Amino acid sequence: MTTFDENLYLDTELARHLYNQYAKNLPIIDYHCHVQAKEIFENKEFEDIGQMWLAGDHYKWRAMRTFGIEETYITGSASFEEKFYKFAEIVPYLIGNPLYIWCALELKRYFGIEEMLCAENAERIFAQTKALIKSNHITPQWCMEKSNVELVCTTEDPIDDLCFHKKLAGKTKTRILTAFRPDQAMFCERSAFASYVKKLEEASGVSIASFEDLVNALENRLLFFKSMGTTVSDDGIPYFSYVEVPEEKLEEIFAKALGNEELSSLEIDAYRTAFLYEMGKLYHTHGFVMQLHVGTYLDANTSKVAAIGQSTGFDCTDDRSSVHSIGLLLDRLTKAHALPKTILYPLDLAKIETFAVLAAGFCDSDVKAKVQLGAPWWFNDQVYGMERQFESVSNLYPLSLGVGMLTDSRSFLSYPRHELYRRLLCRYLARLVERGEYFGGEEYLKEIIERLCITNVKEYFGF
Amino acid sequence: MTTFDENLYLDTELARHLYNQYAKNLPIIDYHCHVQAKEIFENKEFEDIGQMWLAGDHYKWRAMRTFGIEETYITGSASFEEKFYKFAEIVPYLIGNPLYIWCALELKRYFGIEEMLCAENAERIFAQTKALIKSNHITPQWCMEKSNVELVCTTEDPIDDLCFHKKLAGKTKTRILTAFRPDQAMFCERSAFASYVKKLEEASGVSIASFEDLVNALENRLLFFKSMGTTVSDDGIPYFSYVEVPEEKLEEIFAKALGNEELSSLEIDAYRTAFLYEMGKLYHTHGFVMQLHVGTYLDANTSKVAAIGQSTGFDCTDDRSSVHSIGLLLDRLTKAHALPKTILYPLDLAKIETFAVLAAGFCDSDVKAKVQLGAPWWFNDQVYGMERQFESVSNLYPLSLGVGMLTDSRSFLSYPRHELYRRLLCRYLARLVERGEYFGGEEYLKEIIERLCITNVKEYFGF
Amino acid sequence: MTTFDENLYLDTELARHLYNQYAKNLPIIDYHCHVQAKEIFENKEFEDIGQMWLAGDHYKWRAMRTFGIEETYITGSASFEEKFYKFAEIVPYLIGNPLYIWCALELKRYFGIEEMLCAENAERIFAQTKALIKSNHITPQWCMEKSNVELVCTTEDPIDDLCFHKKLAGKTKTRILTAFRPDQAMFCERSAFASYVKKLEEASGVSIASFEDLVNALENRLLFFKSMGTTVSDDGIPYFSYVEVPEEKLEEIFAKALGNEELSSLEIDAYRTAFLYEMGKLYHTHGFVMQLHVGTYLDANTSKVAAIGQSTGFDCTDDRSSVHSIGLLLDRLTKAHALPKTILYPLDLAKIETFAVLAAGFCDSDVKAKVQLGAPWWFNDQVYGMERQFESVSNLYPLSLGVGMLTDSRSFLSYPRHELYRRLLCRYLARLVERGEYFGGEEYLKEIIERLCITNVKEYFGF
Repeated sequence: MTTFDENLYLDTELARHLYNQYAKNLPIIDYHCHVQAKEIFENKEFEDIGQMWLAGDHYKWRAMRTFGIEETYITGSASFEEKFYKFAEIVPYLIGNPLYIWCALELKRYFGIEEMLCAENAERIFAQTKALIKSNHITPQWCMEKSNVELVCTTEDPIDDLCFHKKLAGKTKTRILTAFRPDQAMFCERSAFASYVKKLEEASGVSIASFEDLVNALENRLLFFKSMGTTVSDDGIPYFSYVEVPEEKLEEIFAKALGNEELSSLEIDAYRTAFLYEMGKLYHTHGFVMQLHVGTYLDANTSKVAAIGQSTGFDCTDDRSSVHSIGLLLDRLTKAHALPKTILYPLDLAKIETFAVLAAGFCDSDVKAKVQLGAPWWFNDQVYGMERQFESVSNLYPLSLGVGMLTDSRSFLSYPRHELYRRLLCRYLARLVERGEYFGGEEYLKEIIERLCITNVKEYFGF
Repeated sequence: MTTFDENLYLDTELARHLYNQYAKNLPIIDYHCHVQAKEIFENKEFEDIGQMWLAGDHYKWRAMRTFGIEETYITGSASFEEKFYKFAEIVPYLIGNPLYIWCALELKRYFGIEEMLCAENAERIFAQTKALIKSNHITPQWCMEKSNVELVCTTEDPIDDLCFHKKLAGKTKTRILTAFRPDQAMFCERSAFASYVKKLEEASGVSIASFEDLVNALENRLLFFKSMGTTVSDDGIPYFSYVEVPEEKLEEIFAKALGNEELSSLEIDAYRTAFLYEMGKLYHTHGFVMQLHVGTYLDANTSKVAAIGQSTGFDCTDDRSSVHSIGLLLDRLTKAHALPKTILYPLDLAKIETFAVLAAGFCDSDVKAKVQLGAPWWFNDQVYGMERQFESVSNLYPLSLGVGMLTDSRSFLSYPRHELYRRLLCRYLARLVERGEYFGGEEYLKEIIERLCITNVKEYFGF
Repeated sequence: MTTFDENLYLDTELARHLYNQYAKNLPIIDYHCHVQAKEIFENKEFEDIGQMWLAGDHYKWRAMRTFGIEETYITGSASFEEKFYKFAEIVPYLIGNPLYIWCALELKRYFGIEEMLCAENAERIFAQTKALIKSNHITPQWCMEKSNVELVCTTEDPIDDLCFHKKLAGKTKTRILTAFRPDQAMFCERSAFASYVKKLEEASGVSIASFEDLVNALENRLLFFKSMGTTVSDDGIPYFSYVEVPEEKLEEIFAKALGNEELSSLEIDAYRTAFLYEMGKLYHTHGFVMQLHVGTYLDANTSKVAAIGQSTGFDCTDDRSSVHSIGLLLDRLTKAHALPKTILYPLDLAKIETFAVLAAGFCDSDVKAKVQLGAPWWFNDQVYGMERQFESVSNLYPLSLGVGMLTDSRSFLSYPRHELYRRLLCRYLARLVERGEYFGGEEYLKEIIERLCITNVKEYFGF
């Protein structure tokens, strides 16, 4: 087999049947990603596949660096065409890597190309895709429609005016929502904190002299985001250690942070703890889902980040945060009768199981799957990560309750990641049946597939 | 296939042959569980399957909460029949979860039911099982006999008078032993500690003014347990950090604990360290097996625990304890020539391999498998956990030396968990043969199966 | 099947084809091991298989202890013949353990024996192998040639005069290099530290009154090692916590260490941090590859180590070191433009994924796979560890870039571990093709196999 195979992963009759019959044609809801509303609105025709693939994808940049490719061809001054050729060279050697299968699926689904990209055919494929972009007038919205995307949630800072979301309202086949992501207000130790607080003052119209004021300003913005129709929030938590301090101490820390004084790690932990607690309460009050992304080792390679920028492929995984600390946060919110719906995304694969166990311990009768484990995130968004989610986590938390897949992507070509998830899901379910581990019959399998692909996410977020 | 399949997990001819020929009919020894001796003695006919399944099973309660079912139908005032119907509704959606397969096996083995329980057949199955309970006079002892259970070890506190064990002695087909579990004397930080020490004084007749006295009192009780025929102990260790302090400091901590003064986390760690060291020495002196259950995040959801009670489904996993701390404990006992036979049960799946490695490092020539890794415990007692034990751990510690499966259950219907283990064991062994990884011949496979199902556990504990 | 099967692990046509066609006959480069140059030089005929297997193999010793065998037959005074018989007894019960398959492969490849060793045939096999050793004049060099070993890197301390490497130069079919391993200069907390520094003074001719002097002395030795043709270094790091202190503080610590004063754990951490940073800079300057072996819990069973010795089977895994600490070290080296080529070997299996992610974050355009994850090390060098490396890690770091397998062994019979790796690699690649996950065609598969077996390691180390 030297072309793309439509039976990808579907290794038995039943797996193929389940996928083709029940999963394949369902619409997509991408409830967490990083595409730009501006780009959706402007809906410009892409220039070429080099731009589509290499203008913003830190996965590809990172992989190219492992091959020792010069930075010029990664984030540097080379043209996107040159960058594409450099990338094409490594594709055959990305065997076993998600980039290999993502590229294969993207070439097939958007351009009908079934060959593997490589040095030999790169020029031809570049030209072929360029022609298709032109002839089909391929734009962000075209990609979404092509992939049957019903809804997309972008991610914005509380200070964002969501002007493009306003302009987009009701204008696209794919509904475009936003998600509230207040990370900049959490990183009290960063030099930009004080100036960020200033901007937040302006955006909210709330003057911020205290931590309490900050929370009020954020609530103001949360209500604005809510008025734009969203129920999605998102908190990125690198290292987290739960530390509770009295209110006065907290205000002291906040004052130091505003004054750009150096904070001790204990003070940073205490601030983060208080911040996430207050955000949790706001999410609960205003009917938002809290999404906690835990365990990023941000900007690990500091000199590269200084030279090239944040989020360009130098983040890693932090293995120090304990599930216990997240547990203390959930517990405090529960005690305050203020625990919102919560999705936990641990980045450290070794903690997936303990987080699933934790989630189950905080579920409650007011809502289905109140606290749940999220889809395999970032480095875990690949075959092994998904298999681990299916084979291991379903033993700890009912699989059928999950809200399913998301792309977390900056690209408009990433929707086949949902296809990948659906294929692996159907393979997993088929295996259970084939091993005698499930004998509920096809109507239940159908329902479970639909739940994981579309129904649960709609119910949970209220889309 | 829409009924229970007797080939469950046995996906090849050899797997089926090994299971049916060598594993299936062996008796069961359940050397660690939480059934009540009183219930065995009273041996009352069960009322209905609702009571059997939902009166005390925190696994089911926990799962029901993930589905957002009201607490009334979980631990609340609803009848067991109503609770059963609520539970039945979620069964088809427990795909991939151990509860699904446990329920299937329990319905099949005790009631001959081959359909999947669901909303549609729940009433019929409730009635059908109720009739069978009555016609077969199904009681705790009936369940044990039905499952060919040769021996059961319940778990009791040192202050227990074991009156039901006395009454049961020699009266049942299944031999009933106890296990010595002194956790209450380890939780020095709990408000109930002082009153517990009082009760221990009464039970032992030893007055307790010092930590040394406490150990003497516990030794007294251990000897009483020994006189009842047991060699099994059990220590539940949530977070553990090894801290060694001088004797005087220890007595100070003990005095503070008795006086209900607040202890620092360092003091708690020091006390736990000393406590487990002393218990280890006692176990060694009196020929007990030490079982260390490590890494529970007890009562994580504190407000729920306050409302509903301990051990009702709100415990999680603590990922903070290091294998190094347990190593220091084993090392100190070894240095003192006082290391008992020891079984390690880590709750954090990610640590299974490091604990297996640790166990091997403390084995010694006086006994086979002196320190060993226990069966997959609690959240790990499921298909993936067992596969991990077989596929991964056997590379680090000889699989054939293990003492095999246990239920750790509060229910008299949980013995099919041994069947599950045996099926997966035979599948694993068959795979090794099929892949060319083992070519020792069938007589060895037979012996290894028998060792893991029954022989080793008898030898190790001296049953 | 009751004899060794040449299709071991190769469960499909494609797997067999890839292995037999492309992997099987490639030469071996064993770039990290612990065989003795003196033994290679002397090239004495082995006495018997007992000596070959049991004179120095802590894997076998450790396994024998789990079976409760007396130390006399492990490291004690019994003859190697007696030891061999004791070991033979446990072989059938080592099912699922790497020792089982290593023994099978070693018997087959070096002695043509296809039966499983066991109590019944042990005497016969002992005699048969003894006769073959004599008739074939089996020696260290014979083993290397038999296994088509092109190059071997032993491991030596900086103070070693490499006299046997000098004598061996150009004299053997297998090229013999060394690796620079300065661990003794890192363990500043050990009582032997001061006397080691004395020896280093002598070996280098550099008088050492400061940490700076120590580094200079080590550089002197590194240059000597370089003059012997090697580019390989090796640092064994047990627990590691990154702590940066000013130079004066560092010199204070060094002075205390030289004076045999007790060091705090913070001081030890600070010294290790500075030491590894300086070594990294030296490796970079002089074109060495830095190999970091992280997470050994050395000498866990201290009384056994005192009685029997270090490295005799009482080391375990330390799960406390964070990937974050290693990240800080790599980051500081990067900032100083002094990061050498680096291979990371975490011992804790749970951290394999986070280390792979870290490695990718520090790659750079000056060299292919600048920082990479090493082959599964020590306890992870087995089927499950390799599968995890293939199935999981290749999703995080391009598999095709790795430098492939090593033995890390003290034995001249361990080269079949390369065969094991190659078989599992071909099975993994075949699976990818069979599942539709790779469709690049056979010429790429061939190249990838060759890269992982021989090409990459040559390029990376410059052999």
